[in-house]
Amino acid sequence: MVLMPNTGHKINPMVSKSQIDTTFDLSTYLAERKVLVEKALDKSIRIIYPEKIYEAMRYSLLAGGKRLRPILCLATCELTGGTIEMAMPTACALEMIHTMSLIHDDLPAMDNDDYRRGKLTNHKVYGEDIAILAGDGLLSYAFEFVAAQTKNVLPQQVLQVVARLGKAVGAAGLVGGQVVDLASEGISEVSEETLNFIHIHKTGALLEASVVCGGILATASPTNLERLSHFAKNIGLAFQIVDDILDITATTEELGKTARKDIEAQKATYPAIWGLEASRHQAQKLIENAKAELEVFGHKAMPLIALADYITSRSN
Amino acid sequence: MVLMPNTGHKINPMVSKSQIDTTFDLSTYLAERKVLVEKALDKSIRIIYPEKIYEAMRYSLLAGGKRLRPILCLATCELTGGTIEMAMPTACALEMIHTMSLIHDDLPAMDNDDYRRGKLTNHKVYGEDIAILAGDGLLSYAFEFVAAQTKNVLPQQVLQVVARLGKAVGAAGLVGGQVVDLASEGISEVSEETLNFIHIHKTGALLEASVVCGGILATASPTNLERLSHFAKNIGLAFQIVDDILDITATTEELGKTARKDIEAQKATYPAIWGLEASRHQAQKLIENAKAELEVFGHKAMPLIALADYITSRSN
Repeated sequence: MVLMPNTGHKINPMVSKSQIDTTFDLSTYLAERKVLVEKALDKSIRIIYPEKIYEAMRYSLLAGGKRLRPILCLATCELTGGTIEMAMPTACALEMIHTMSLIHDDLPAMDNDDYRRGKLTNHKVYGEDIAILAGDGLLSYAFEFVAAQTKNVLPQQVLQVVARLGKAVGAAGLVGGQVVDLASEGISEVSEETLNFIHIHKTGALLEASVVCGGILATASPTNLERLSHFAKNIGLAFQIVDDILDITATTEELGKTARKDIEAQKATYPAIWGLEASRHQAQKLIENAKAELEVFGHKAMPLIALADYITSRSN
Repeated sequence: MVLMPNTGHKINPMVSKSQIDTTFDLSTYLAERKVLVEKALDKSIRIIYPEKIYEAMRYSLLAGGKRLRPILCLATCELTGGTIEMAMPTACALEMIHTMSLIHDDLPAMDNDDYRRGKLTNHKVYGEDIAILAGDGLLSYAFEFVAAQTKNVLPQQVLQVVARLGKAVGAAGLVGGQVVDLASEGISEVSEETLNFIHIHKTGALLEASVVCGGILATASPTNLERLSHFAKNIGLAFQIVDDILDITATTEELGKTARKDIEAQKATYPAIWGLEASRHQAQKLIENAKAELEVFGHKAMPLIALADYITSRSN
């Protein structure tokens, strides 16, 4: 399948096959889904006593961001025959987990960052103790939320989602990636293998869980879950390569976080190993592979195809 | 039901009713169950790349301790018709969650403790960054472990366990209790109400989950789950009162952690509000209430009756 280049987030993935001009408006789609997700997130945590911890959890959970993980989860659930309602608790849990990882990553003992998404980081506002606990609270609530709030899905499917989420965030996923990332800091000769390990685990695992869990909730076939998994692995790595590129080419204002942070921290990045141009090329190749996995779904896959293209074209 | 006083951990709870001398050897029971739990915990985490995080997780998870939560969970599962095998993954998860809370509580930004169970705390050995991540890893693995490893239990029961565990450790449980505890430090006039809140959440919630989840896994009736919940709430508060008493009366060697720490940190404690003698009396009253809840189960409840007595008689 030949795809049109992505210009202004309007793409036309089917034109070469069907010759029907069914352009897909990704910007509107993302904006609408983001509103849905943020409404659900806002509703998910009420402020009760002791207010400080709920405020701290909400501060970071509702601090904006692309909501890419929840949106991916909703999209794959719909793609494989499920509904938005079935996937929304898991979508929220994914954002809770992602937010937890950001709060803990920003701590002085970790990346020691003062700003995130253009706002002060959690520990700068609430103190280190509360920031650690807010992360713990979000992580545990994510599992409670999926288990207690998921409706119209078979319990065994929900259990599979719990297991997938747990694996994606633990030592076999995000936490393991962060450990290798921390250990690689300041080391000038980080191998491509190590860099791949870091990103497959630190970013990739949760993105893959986002995509695959949507399918699990819809009781997708093993073959389709495999396709979703490949799609996710490809866009996950592409996403990270683009992140590395943006750290060099974008401004702090565009990013909403400190630019050129990787270079200053002497972090290993793909542009550092391959150069900028080869990194861009590699990201594009991964995106093409990702999209090829979804050909079988036809026009129903348009949101995910468009999302894949968006990853390489984004500026923050 | 009148119970014999607990001497040397051999008690005879039924003698007044049945006049049959069925003494229960709690020391042997606890030692045997502890071995079972520690074998399962040892098997639960293998050391793979990146080794440091798995080593850090194992360091604290296998650092001894009474394994009270797992043992309670196994006991209530058996009491209500289930088996040890059905409850073991949840039992391990309870210890993973408990260990996570200890690792994070000991951090410099929290209680800043150098020793735990007679060993250096996690961050003193592995550094603060790894200690934070080891806690995150244990917490997420706990949920994965329950969801993926529980066998011969209906999926909807396992999901209920996941939801209970999540609630027990989050802002509505352990995390919330810790927040109020931190806020109360150094304040001379902490009310009994606040102190109750702290302990019902910081210690009580996970103990209650330990006891109730065993019943959920065995598909216990709502009435029996209610009984288990009351039993757990009573022993949970008694446990904390005894902890406060031991902080004053026991040595660092006996405790395996710094003694008189609460006093030095000017922490609110029950003995500080009620005095030592009234605190002992209150703990005993709670234990009697707890045991009364289990009368209906007859001699099958002996391990739990003995455990309740053990809480007030323990010296560490």
